[in-house]
Amino acid sequence: MAAELTAHDLIAQHRPTLDQALEAIRTRAYWSPHPEHPKAYGENGSLDMAAGKAAFDALLGTRLDLGQPGTDDWVGGEVSPYGIELGVTYPHADLDVLLPAMKAGQRAWRDAGAEIRAVVCLEILKRISDRTHEFAHAVMHTSGQAFMMAFQAGGPHAQDRGLEAVAYAYVEQVRTPDTAEWTKPQGKRDPLALTKQFTPVPRGIGLVIGCNTFPTWNGYPGLFASLATGNAVLVKPHPRAVLPLALTVQVARQVLTEAGFDPNLVALAAERPGEGIAKTLATRPEIRIIDYTGSTSFGDWLEANARQAQVYTEKAGVNTVVVESAGDYRGMLSNLAFSLSLYSGQMCTTPQNLLIPRDGIRTDQGPKTFDEVVADLARAIDGLLGDDARANALLGAIVNPDVKARLEAAAGLGEVALASREVANPDFPGAVVRTPVLVKLDGAKPDAEAAYMSECFGPVSFAVAVDSVTDAVELLRRTVREKGAMTVGAYTTDPEVEEAVQEVCLEEAAQLSLNLTGGVYVNQTAAFSDFHGSGGNPAANAALCDGAFVANRFRVVEVRREA
Amino acid sequence: MAAELTAHDLIAQHRPTLDQALEAIRTRAYWSPHPEHPKAYGENGSLDMAAGKAAFDALLGTRLDLGQPGTDDWVGGEVSPYGIELGVTYPHADLDVLLPAMKAGQRAWRDAGAEIRAVVCLEILKRISDRTHEFAHAVMHTSGQAFMMAFQAGGPHAQDRGLEAVAYAYVEQVRTPDTAEWTKPQGKRDPLALTKQFTPVPRGIGLVIGCNTFPTWNGYPGLFASLATGNAVLVKPHPRAVLPLALTVQVARQVLTEAGFDPNLVALAAERPGEGIAKTLATRPEIRIIDYTGSTSFGDWLEANARQAQVYTEKAGVNTVVVESAGDYRGMLSNLAFSLSLYSGQMCTTPQNLLIPRDGIRTDQGPKTFDEVVADLARAIDGLLGDDARANALLGAIVNPDVKARLEAAAGLGEVALASREVANPDFPGAVVRTPVLVKLDGAKPDAEAAYMSECFGPVSFAVAVDSVTDAVELLRRTVREKGAMTVGAYTTDPEVEEAVQEVCLEEAAQLSLNLTGGVYVNQTAAFSDFHGSGGNPAANAALCDGAFVANRFRVVEVRREA
Repeated sequence: MAAELTAHDLIAQHRPTLDQALEAIRTRAYWSPHPEHPKAYGENGSLDMAAGKAAFDALLGTRLDLGQPGTDDWVGGEVSPYGIELGVTYPHADLDVLLPAMKAGQRAWRDAGAEIRAVVCLEILKRISDRTHEFAHAVMHTSGQAFMMAFQAGGPHAQDRGLEAVAYAYVEQVRTPDTAEWTKPQGKRDPLALTKQFTPVPRGIGLVIGCNTFPTWNGYPGLFASLATGNAVLVKPHPRAVLPLALTVQVARQVLTEAGFDPNLVALAAERPGEGIAKTLATRPEIRIIDYTGSTSFGDWLEANARQAQVYTEKAGVNTVVVESAGDYRGMLSNLAFSLSLYSGQMCTTPQNLLIPRDGIRTDQGPKTFDEVVADLARAIDGLLGDDARANALLGAIVNPDVKARLEAAAGLGEVALASREVANPDFPGAVVRTPVLVKLDGAKPDAEAAYMSECFGPVSFAVAVDSVTDAVELLRRTVREKGAMTVGAYTTDPEVEEAVQEVCLEEAAQLSLNLTGGVYVNQTAAFSDFHGSGGNPAANAALCDGAFVANRFRVVEVRREA
Repeated sequence: MAAELTAHDLIAQHRPTLDQALEAIRTRAYWSPHPEHPKAYGENGSLDMAAGKAAFDALLGTRLDLGQPGTDDWVGGEVSPYGIELGVTYPHADLDVLLPAMKAGQRAWRDAGAEIRAVVCLEILKRISDRTHEFAHAVMHTSGQAFMMAFQAGGPHAQDRGLEAVAYAYVEQVRTPDTAEWTKPQGKRDPLALTKQFTPVPRGIGLVIGCNTFPTWNGYPGLFASLATGNAVLVKPHPRAVLPLALTVQVARQVLTEAGFDPNLVALAAERPGEGIAKTLATRPEIRIIDYTGSTSFGDWLEANARQAQVYTEKAGVNTVVVESAGDYRGMLSNLAFSLSLYSGQMCTTPQNLLIPRDGIRTDQGPKTFDEVVADLARAIDGLLGDDARANALLGAIVNPDVKARLEAAAGLGEVALASREVANPDFPGAVVRTPVLVKLDGAKPDAEAAYMSECFGPVSFAVAVDSVTDAVELLRRTVREKGAMTVGAYTTDPEVEEAVQEVCLEEAAQLSLNLTGGVYVNQTAAFSDFHGSGGNPAANAALCDGAFVANRFRVVEVRREA
């Protein structure tokens, strides 16, 4: 069968984008080929807002037949955090049929080489980008993100992270040339001469274990890094967030087919409720790479038990913001209020502990006591979320009952500076929408430590009174070292404090945002420029995206002959 | 104290070499800055043959005081495989003193940046290169390599591998710029603008666990990769091969001091007989990187237990040569004879199993039966080693009693095609010198499989009769998959057979040498061009040297501020 997508056309279409991505990861200046604005879609084959909504609606209640071999059942059961049942069913796989089938196409995929694999991946991303409006609803109704966030983080930002991984994977593979002529002088004798061929070879099948909150954003880096380096990829979505990744697999299979490759290079492993196939899959000998986002306990289990695989984990951390002084007090408050509110704090990057000296802080608005700072922050959050429509647009919905339970329990951990309140969502009466709770803790009290030294994922943050900025810096260090951190923030006008916080972040390998007061938030990172996680503290063993994230997904095999 | 070696001078002196190394790893053409010929030394501050020998002799019976903190004893006891007692003693460390001291200088080393670290490493290598003659004797009298091999493999080739690691480490760290200005358009509003700093940060202390046979060649890649990426490095040599690495540590400490850094960034951990400190060290929390060369059992233990560290292991494999047909029969025989004889087969890359169809092979000298091929190879080995002087120069000495015992037991495993013989060494009457044994096995017999499917490290090889070339290819696949392989060789004039062997090597990630008949041997790899190991089969989890070998030895920490 002749491929509908020729290598020539794919390269012509996507090589310029790949080159721009390669330049972006080198300069780390701002760049993205994926528009953030919903109105940017609707031309050149992309779905506009209405068409995307219609496409999503048409999926509800259907069977998503991916045409996978070894399908022995159909499973589903996603219920949107907004209250609607998706009713979509997905193939359930007989692994002893599916996994061998996934290996059948690996040789051709390997032999295609790094550039073809990259442009095929870019075509997959392009098709996904065209359906961003449809994916936005799928992300919204699985993660509970508000529409605009689901659109941006689940759409262009996720696609950016996928493209970034393709760029890293491509450049890593072409660091070694395809061939080399090696000629070693031997004095008066003839030189030794060898012809050498170097081939990037895949490790096997990559397993992507998706998460509930960011199925595409956290799933795409591993998926595309493994695929672009020649591996087949099996996607095991979170049971509550299958649809966005199932659609992704569907697109990938279609593009692979059209490009003349075996669609089984990408497949879905949906599971029955409570089946827990991640453990089974993770230790299968065919699985040689695992990308995981989720709880620390399962991440640690994977690292300890999936010994046949390269394991990349993003687990949980406790994110800290040190508040020592403020050159723009109001800017700090509004920036922090937004960070704590966005997606109800259900981001691995949301700050949890705000360390504030109990004697108060200096600000451009005069000195502020600890209580004043906390009260002002509470007021800022309240103001930001005072309007229900804006609250709904920022908060989204609580993703699952565990988060709701933690939120409700948090009020008992200390003095509540800002109580959580219910917000009604007129469009989705079944949505569980809550504003964040802000709890005061005394950092010197042992019972408080139990609270602030544990991750409390969700819309819960602690204003922790510390004796001094020195104590704050030391607590920051201990928190990152023992619990890990995806992000650290600090507000200070004192160069020595800035230096001390920076030194802790360098020594403990945590990503630091300093004195953010405008439209960039500590919990947001931009692909091609910001690293997500560091891979150097307990929160994650990898960073998105760097050389280490891709370099061990393939190996280089050399064949040498006398010239 | 002003540094004697200024950054400016170090860069001026070594940057051109670094740039050449960077170019070499990109093109993989032949290159080396380290002369292979003993007579090339003696000018520009390097020791000539006599001075090197005198320097080595002066070390014997002395205490090598490295000036390390926490030295609580002096230990030694190396006995050369050539029979002489070295009598050198080394510092034994109180780890609770030494390890914290090693961390004291890390901040300055980190802040120096990738380029300064690289040129300091190059200065260390330059000083070692100047003492190549001295190191040659140290390697000879610990590994048992013959002088010329100890000189080349322990000198320039090891220095090449160290430099190669520095080049990879440098380029990996500068892939991300030091700073970036990130400006994101916001339509009619002001753009978002951030200033970002990116700093490569070390993981902590790297531990190098040295081996008996190639202390410098196998030790330098990990040592220099960790040091160049900002880590401190603790070197734990094999108790029988301390001197070459102790001298290396001494040089490194001196250069670090002269360049204004803390000498404790590099230290030695010598041990008492039977102390077994590798296990203790490997699980210390300060140790974040481990480079190991040695047995599969301890390598597997490290991978399973040193969970706080990045672990790079080169373990054991079973190396295969498929002999299907020969376009240059005599060239093949002489090439194989050399490979099997060099350093008494005590290389992780030496072929062990020669798979030969029992019905014989086609050659340019007419058809040859299985027995003829084996007899001709035995004759070629015998001819190569017939002269005792040449035999001594090629074989070196048996490194330890275990190898000797294996060699003696091998004769009982099958029909001996070539018996091992003792060779007298007139210079060193205590040397244990043996020619290789070649044993015929029937690949179809289960009791033979127990022999050829185990690594028999030393001068032992098996001529395995197989039913067909198809069987040979399948046995090759099974051997690599189950036992691992550092090298694979094949002799064939049949393009289909070549293709089949190549496909196995690509699928099982093994490095393949095809039809070598001249002066390049399957067991030799050249830095900057050949990969040593693949990191993709059980013989080793890393390759020397590639991006994956260096990329996870450091992390990048980002600090971002509003612009």
